[in-house]
Amino acid sequence: MEKRTISVRGGRRVVLTVKDYMKDKAVLIDSEMERYLKQKEHVPEILIESMQYSLIAGGKRLRPILVLATVHALGGEEEKALPFACAIEMIHTYSLIHDDLPAMDNDDYRRGKKTNHKVFGEAQAILAGDALLTEAFGLLVAGIRSAGLELNTALSVIEEASRFAGMHGMIAGQVSDLLSENKKISLEELAHIHKRKTGDLIAFAVRTGARIAGADEKTLEGLTRYAYGLGLAFQIQDDILDVIGDQAVLGKPVGSDIEQNKSTYPALIGLEESKQKLAVVTQTAKEELEKLPIDATQLLALADYLLVRKK
Amino acid sequence: MEKRTISVRGGRRVVLTVKDYMKDKAVLIDSEMERYLKQKEHVPEILIESMQYSLIAGGKRLRPILVLATVHALGGEEEKALPFACAIEMIHTYSLIHDDLPAMDNDDYRRGKKTNHKVFGEAQAILAGDALLTEAFGLLVAGIRSAGLELNTALSVIEEASRFAGMHGMIAGQVSDLLSENKKISLEELAHIHKRKTGDLIAFAVRTGARIAGADEKTLEGLTRYAYGLGLAFQIQDDILDVIGDQAVLGKPVGSDIEQNKSTYPALIGLEESKQKLAVVTQTAKEELEKLPIDATQLLALADYLLVRKK
Repeated sequence: MEKRTISVRGGRRVVLTVKDYMKDKAVLIDSEMERYLKQKEHVPEILIESMQYSLIAGGKRLRPILVLATVHALGGEEEKALPFACAIEMIHTYSLIHDDLPAMDNDDYRRGKKTNHKVFGEAQAILAGDALLTEAFGLLVAGIRSAGLELNTALSVIEEASRFAGMHGMIAGQVSDLLSENKKISLEELAHIHKRKTGDLIAFAVRTGARIAGADEKTLEGLTRYAYGLGLAFQIQDDILDVIGDQAVLGKPVGSDIEQNKSTYPALIGLEESKQKLAVVTQTAKEELEKLPIDATQLLALADYLLVRKK
Repeated sequence: MEKRTISVRGGRRVVLTVKDYMKDKAVLIDSEMERYLKQKEHVPEILIESMQYSLIAGGKRLRPILVLATVHALGGEEEKALPFACAIEMIHTYSLIHDDLPAMDNDDYRRGKKTNHKVFGEAQAILAGDALLTEAFGLLVAGIRSAGLELNTALSVIEEASRFAGMHGMIAGQVSDLLSENKKISLEELAHIHKRKTGDLIAFAVRTGARIAGADEKTLEGLTRYAYGLGLAFQIQDDILDVIGDQAVLGKPVGSDIEQNKSTYPALIGLEESKQKLAVVTQTAKEELEKLPIDATQLLALADYLLVRKK
C-alpha cells in the first residue's frame, strides 16, 4: 500500500510516498528542535544533554507531523506551524521519559536506545521531563507570536495544551493505566484509557494545526473525531505489534505487555479481531475527513500508513 | 517587630499585623485552590486526592501572597490576581513533590506531613507533580481571560511562567543543586543556585502581579530586584533555620543540610555572618521598593516578616 502524497523538496513539488513524506517532515522537525535547544544559553549542560538525548531519539514524530499535515490540509503555512509541532513533541517526549522511570513502567529501552534514566540517572530524568513540559509552553508562546495568532485563538491553544496533556487528558490516562495493572478490565475501560493516554495529545496536535490555519468550529470537530480514531488505531496497532512485531524494527522488546500482565486489545478480544477492529477504526477516521471541505490527502495517507506500520 | 498593615476583613478596612495579613491571604488562597480542584470532573479520584494532599498542606503561601500584595501595591484588583496566585502555588507545590522523591532529596516529611510519595507511592507522586505543573498553565489562561489581559501581557505571563519555572530558572537551579552535592562550592555559586532554584519563581510571582496591575517597565524592573532580594533572604533564612530552627515549628527535621553535606550560608561563612548577610539583603530589597511610586506597605512588611520568621 504505497500511498503517494505531494510535497515540496528543494523548492520543487514532488510526489512522495507517505513514508518519504514522514521522513522529510521528521528531518525538518528534528533539525528545528535541535536548533531550538542549541541556542539556549546559561542552562546546565547536563540538563540540555538529557533533554536532547530523548528529544532527538529518532521517533516517528507522528504528533508534530499531524500538526503540519493538518495545517497543510487547510491551506495554512507549514512554517508557522513548526514551533507548535516541536512543542507537542516535547510534551510527548516528557511523558515518555516519566513513563519509563523505575517507579512507573521501569523500561530500559525506548526507540532502540537506553531510556533517559538509564543514561542520566533518575533525578536528572525527572528534571529533563519537567523541563521539556515547561519549555513546551514557552515554545507555544513563541509560535503564537511568530504566527501572529489573535488573543482568543492563542489562549485556546495554551488552555488545550494544559487540558489535553494534563489531569483531564494524558495524565488521567496514565493514572488509569497504572490503576488497571494486574486487573481484568473491560474493552470499554481499555478504550477509555487509550483515549486519554494516547488520543488526547493526538487530538491536541490536530486541533492546534486546525486553529493555526483558522479552521471553523465544524471542521475543528470533524478533525477531532479523525484524531481520536487515529489515536485509537495507533494504540491497537501498538498492542498488536507487541504480539507479532519484530524487536529489531520496534527498538523495544516484544511481549512486554503479556509479561507485565497488561490489558491489551489482543488479550481482550484476540489477535484477529484486533486486526479487524484496527481496520474499522481507521476506515471510520478516514470517513470523518471525507466529510470536510479540506485537502485531506496527507491526513488520509497517514491513517493508511499507521495501519501497516511495523514500528 | 509587629509590623502592621491595612487589609479588608468582612468589607471593613482593619489594621492587621503582617502575620495576620498572611494568614488571611493564605486562607483565601487555600479556599480558592480547594474550590478549583473540587469542580473538576472526570478525573481519576486518586489523582485529585494526591494533588490536593500536597497543595492544601498548610504552606506559608509566600509566592501567591506576593502576587496579591504586588497587585495591591499598584492599586490593582486582588480578585483578578487570585487565579494567577493559585497557579504559581501549584507550580511551587509540583516542584516540592518532585524534589522530595527518593531519587532527588528523598525526604519523608514536608510541612509537618508525610511527603506525597510516602502516602501515594512514587508513580502517583510523579504524576501529581506533572499534573499540577500542567494545570497551572490552564489556570493562568483562566486568570488571563477573567482579568481581560491584552494579548501581549497575556503572552508575557505564560512565557515567563515557562522561563522562570523551567530550564532557564527553577529547574536549572535544581539541576545545579544536585550537581553541587558533596562538593565544596563558592559563595557565588551558592548564590547563583539560590537565585535559580528559589529566586526565579518568587520573581515570577511579583512580576505577574505587576503585569496584572499594569506596571510600567521601570516599576517592573524595580519590583524584580526586590523579589530577587527577598528570594535570597528567604533562602539564607532557610539555611539558618536548618541550624538553629525548632523542628516542631518547622515541620521538618533540622540539621538535614549538614547531614546531607549541603553547601549553605552558615556552612560557608558561619552563622553570625549569615545573619548579617540576611539583614543587609533584606534592607537592600526594601530600598528597591522605596524608589518606586507604589504603596509598598505590605511588600515592606513581608520582607520584615521573612527576616524574623521561625518556619
